[in-house]
Parts: sequence; structure tokens; C-alpha cells
Amino acid sequence: MELNDTIKAQLNHRSIRHFKEQALDKKTITTLLEVARQTASSQFFQQFSIIHVTDGAKRKRLAEICNQPPVSQNGELFIFLIDLHRNQQLRKQAGLDDGRLHTMDLYLQGLSDATLAVQNMYVAAESLGLGGVILGSIRNDIAAVSELFDLPEMVIPALGLQIGLPAESSEKKPRLPLDLLVFENKYQSTLPKKALEDYDQEVAAYYLNRQTNARKETFTNQITGSKSALNKHFTKRDEVLEQTHKQGFLWN
Amino acid sequence: MELNDTIKAQLNHRSIRHFKEQALDKKTITTLLEVARQTASSQFFQQFSIIHVTDGAKRKRLAEICNQPPVSQNGELFIFLIDLHRNQQLRKQAGLDDGRLHTMDLYLQGLSDATLAVQNMYVAAESLGLGGVILGSIRNDIAAVSELFDLPEMVIPALGLQIGLPAESSEKKPRLPLDLLVFENKYQSTLPKKALEDYDQEVAAYYLNRQTNARKETFTNQITGSKSALNKHFTKRDEVLEQTHKQGFLWN
Repeated sequence: MELNDTIKAQLNHRSIRHFKEQALDKKTITTLLEVARQTASSQFFQQFSIIHVTDGAKRKRLAEICNQPPVSQNGELFIFLIDLHRNQQLRKQAGLDDGRLHTMDLYLQGLSDATLAVQNMYVAAESLGLGGVILGSIRNDIAAVSELFDLPEMVIPALGLQIGLPAESSEKKPRLPLDLLVFENKYQSTLPKKALEDYDQEVAAYYLNRQTNARKETFTNQITGSKSALNKHFTKRDEVLEQTHKQGFLWN
Repeated sequence: MELNDTIKAQLNHRSIRHFKEQALDKKTITTLLEVARQTASSQFFQQFSIIHVTDGAKRKRLAEICNQPPVSQNGELFIFLIDLHRNQQLRKQAGLDDGRLHTMDLYLQGLSDATLAVQNMYVAAESLGLGGVILGSIRNDIAAVSELFDLPEMVIPALGLQIGLPAESSEKKPRLPLDLLVFENKYQSTLPKKALEDYDQEVAAYYLNRQTNARKETFTNQITGSKSALNKHFTKRDEVLEQTHKQGFLWN
């Protein structure tokens, strides 16, 4: 099997957080948004929207929330929203109830629509030689982000996506090997110790040899080490459940 | 701006549900799984797994659950899982608590990992001329699907993906126009009536003219019509919240 350019770029994926000052032209941005628009949508309900953030003050605020200064700098910034508000309005205008939109089932449909669209647009950007990073860190303070964009009931941010001309190069991060990730017909509960040790060594080599922020690190240590984010018992990110309820989602 | 092959294929996306009998060769399947493996992962925690379903009886059961007979027929079938079990085990083996893994924050990380990987693999498949369909319908009975694959605590299905050699052609479905989908800096709550009417006309033309199952239909009617899935007050799909809790997720 020949690898085509699409798959070559996908296998070569790495996150890019620093971008050149040069802006993307309007046509490129529109094309990328068109790709997002064509993404598969659950039951054709099309329950997501995108905010293109061009306002400097809002980007600065987002950079603070994400705790990532480059978010306020170069590249284009998009916030993908779960959006059930549009369909809620259509039902209200038709004199119908909106009960089902408040279920977890519909929340998951909207989240799926938004997340699939992020990846679709991300692949398109990378295929053009652009770099980018997905910003889950908008969930550091989901209420603040919701407020920043005047999100009404039934709308809540899913993920951010920043893309632009790469101003850095980075090494490819080794991922869990396929035999730890893919099962046939049945989930395998037991962790294969040897495969995990080998993988930890591979990750250690990556961290030791990388150009910036080289350090001693393994995958297991990111999960179990003293600095692991998994040690925290409560963070502001845990307000996401309350905020999700408050926006009208996930009631049953 | 020249459109490249990646973007051309993305803009040309449509769901394919019927596949030729010819199986995909092993190398192609592995390449597609390698693409999924390279997908961006939240905090590098890599909290998803994939089950490749090759067992005929399990595919038959899934086809029943999804209420889609082709699921048991041709093409390859993959179930993408939110998987926090791996990291839970690592923490338990290290004598650490697993408290944080039970939060909505971590659930969303796993769901994001799984969903991004679905789209990444889907784009790769389409770039090879294959067709596919994302199966949100596994949530018709998420408990039954979990049982089918012996999923332990901290693992739950996110989405299915079926891919193969297309045995049908289909017209491109018109999506919400960009001005209904993309906002700049601020969410626009008011639905632009004219744009929506135009869109409904475009959707109506698509449904009237399509080769199979042609009918009178609009976008608005799918949301508000007497046959809309949004009219249902309770379906089996609404057990997803209970099952998610039961599997150990989304406790706070």
C-alpha cells in the first residue's frame, strides 16, 4: 500500500504552539471552515458552532484562562461550541417542547459534532503545511469562556483550535503501541507489563533528546509521578459539570 | 489557494453505509489504526482504545442495537472507547488513588481523545477512496455494547466507525451555511430567518432529487416535524447517563 499525502501528514502529526506573525489569508480560513462544515453530523442535527476569535482582548483573556501565552499571539483562534440553541429555537418557534435537548444523549451528539469538526479542520490545516494545537485548556474555566462569548442556554464550549504558520519544529511524540491500544472483539483488562516498559523507555528517549524542555520523563510517570495532574483532588476544571448543568445540558 | 487532495476529499465527504464484499487488506487496516494512534491526545494521557470487531455474532448483535443491518455485513467495524481503565490501573499499581479519573473533566478528556481519533481515521480512510459511516447509534443501548466487549470499570464506548469499499454512491448533503455556523468574537443568538429558509429550500431539493429514499423534507422539519426524533420524551438512549455513572465516570 502506498501512503498518500493525507496519511503521510497524519502520521507526521505533532502539536505546534508557536506561530509566525504572518496571518492566514481569508480564503484559506474560509476553506478550513468549509471543511469543518462538511463534517459528519449526528442524525444531521448539526449541533455545533464555531467562534472565530479575532478580538485581541478576548484572545488575551483566553490565554490567561488556558494558561498558555501563545494563545494571545499569532495564528488564528477558533472555539468550537456544542450548540443545541439553534434547534431549541426552531422548536420553540414551532410551539414545541425542548425536553429531549436537555438529555445526555443530545449533549453527546452536540459534543461529538463539535469534536469531529475540530479534528477535520485540524487535518485540513496540517495538510496545507500549517501547524496547530487543540486547546482542551479552555475547560480550565468553562464559565469564564462561556461568558466571554455571551453564550446563551444550550451552548457550551467543547474545544479550541489554534492554527497558523509554524514558528517551531518539534519531534514526533511516541504514542502507546497498537497492541496496547487496539483489541480484537474483546477488551483486554490486563496491562502487558513488558510492552508498557518498552514504551516508557521510548518516551524517556523522546523527552531526553528533544530540543526544548528536555527532561527525564516517562508515560507512566505522567500518570503516577508526584507532578501528575491526576494527583489533584479538586481543580477549577471540576466546575465543568455544574456549568454544563447550568447551561441546560445533561439533565437526564 | 489550490485545494489539495486532502481537502478535496474532505469537502466531498458523504456517509457510506453499504460496502463491497471485498475485505480490506491487513496493511491498510494497520495504517488506518496507526493514524488513529497518532491523533492529538489531551495532556498526553491517551485515554482511548479501539475494538476491531471481526466476530460475526458480535457484529450481528451490534447491527441489532444500532438498528442498521449493514453493520453486520461488509466493511470493517471499529468501536472507539473512552478508556481511563489503563491509567487507573497504573495508579492503583503505584498505590495511588484514582479519584480524579472519576470527574467529568477526565471523562471529557477521554471522550475527546476517542472522538478526535474517529475523525482522524475516517479522513484517512476517505483519502484512500474508501467510504465509511460513524455509528452514534451504538448509544441506542450502551449497556448492551459495554457487555458485548466485557468492558471493565472506567471504559465506555464513544462511537463506532465502519469503513470499506463503497457499494453505493450518494449525493452530497447540504450543510448549514457558514453564516449560520461561524461567528466572530460573539455568539449570535438570533436565527437569521431568510438564511434558514434558503437553507431549507436547498435541503428540500437534495431530498427530492436523491437517488434512494427521495422524499419531501427540510432541515427545520427534521427538528420540528411530527417524525422528529426530538419529539421523544424518553428512549433507551437516555440510559446513557446511568450507564456512564455505573462505569465509574462523571461523578463530579
